[in-house]
Amino acid sequence: MGVVKSKRMPRAVREQQMLDAAVEIFGQRGYMAASMDEIAELAGVSKPLVYLYLNSKEDLFTACIRREAAALTEAVRTGVRTELPVDRQLWDGLLAFFTHTSLHPHAWSVLHLQARIHGEAFVAEVNAMREEIVAFVTQLIVVAAREAHRDPDLPEREVAGLAEALVGAAESLAAWANATPGVTARQSAATLMNFAWAGLGNLMEGRPWIPEAVGAESAPVQVSG
Amino acid sequence: MGVVKSKRMPRAVREQQMLDAAVEIFGQRGYMAASMDEIAELAGVSKPLVYLYLNSKEDLFTACIRREAAALTEAVRTGVRTELPVDRQLWDGLLAFFTHTSLHPHAWSVLHLQARIHGEAFVAEVNAMREEIVAFVTQLIVVAAREAHRDPDLPEREVAGLAEALVGAAESLAAWANATPGVTARQSAATLMNFAWAGLGNLMEGRPWIPEAVGAESAPVQVSG
Repeated sequence: MGVVKSKRMPRAVREQQMLDAAVEIFGQRGYMAASMDEIAELAGVSKPLVYLYLNSKEDLFTACIRREAAALTEAVRTGVRTELPVDRQLWDGLLAFFTHTSLHPHAWSVLHLQARIHGEAFVAEVNAMREEIVAFVTQLIVVAAREAHRDPDLPEREVAGLAEALVGAAESLAAWANATPGVTARQSAATLMNFAWAGLGNLMEGRPWIPEAVGAESAPVQVSG
Repeated sequence: MGVVKSKRMPRAVREQQMLDAAVEIFGQRGYMAASMDEIAELAGVSKPLVYLYLNSKEDLFTACIRREAAALTEAVRTGVRTELPVDRQLWDGLLAFFTHTSLHPHAWSVLHLQARIHGEAFVAEVNAMREEIVAFVTQLIVVAAREAHRDPDLPEREVAGLAEALVGAAESLAAWANATPGVTARQSAATLMNFAWAGLGNLMEGRPWIPEAVGAESAPVQVSG
């Protein structure tokens, strides 16, 4: 990392370097195949020091998840300025999300793939972050519905479903973009924005999709509040 | 299952009963906590017979994933009639998907949650199904773009991204719907259809989201083919 290491380096700094190295190795190799030797070597410290600071491979992995989940949530939050129009907020949030996941592909792999593959305790850590992001998106949609002056507002349950759909779409698209050479963060954000905004916009204004050839028995219904 | 069990029951039938029981127990308890005793008891057979037929807990779980993945893919495929308009095909496909996941919540839990939590081999099984569904959705979008007579067609890469987004949205919404009392398959399908169709429709016709307040430096771009 271009930092000169010395014995007098503060513990907090060393710990961050260990986490940097661990995210790299976990993201590249997967949790099972990652070796503590390799992590220590990349961090430029001895393996016993990693155990002294982070306790175990499990605890080290949990610390990685927590740090990277907080960083991703923070990136999305600071990317959005609530004084702007709500479509611009959604665009800025998507762009911040895909920029962060494309700049930190190993971190995204740890959060989206590795943490889910390796046990319920890790999944619970990631789900806490996911709930925060879903709550944030839900709030955006609620504000959008209010701005559209629709009365009654979009039912709470439909908003919750939309937020889940949007977050699921973003997660899936980020994983695909990171695995597909040449896809930029801006392209991913544009794909999802174009996909999502028109649909959301129509819903806000009470114009759901109406099929031409659907009989009464299979026509879609709006969720009633 | 209301079936009279006898020693002369064919192996294939017994095996399906074991898988029925295993999906129930794995879906309810999770892979780790599920006990082979409980699975055997629910299937109405002895534990040694489960091991004789399915070999190990791991192999039993893999057999569950394969069977349920095939059943879900089949439900979506047979729900769609390719002679109908493409928006109707998407609606029918979504309705088939959410109907299947809501009728078989334990199977969906095995595919979407359990298989991902418990190791890379299981994830690979689920990913094979996911790729098939993404390919199916991609084809739908390609046909829709062709029907819209847009020239040049929607770039291949953008279609791939849209299919990933739509599948991710459906997965996320199905998990939420199954965890939220009172949400019907029809409501989930309507939420996603309303969300997705207007956006897709606009894209087909070359009308992307255009922000009011975005400067050139941060305007979204279309992916060029």
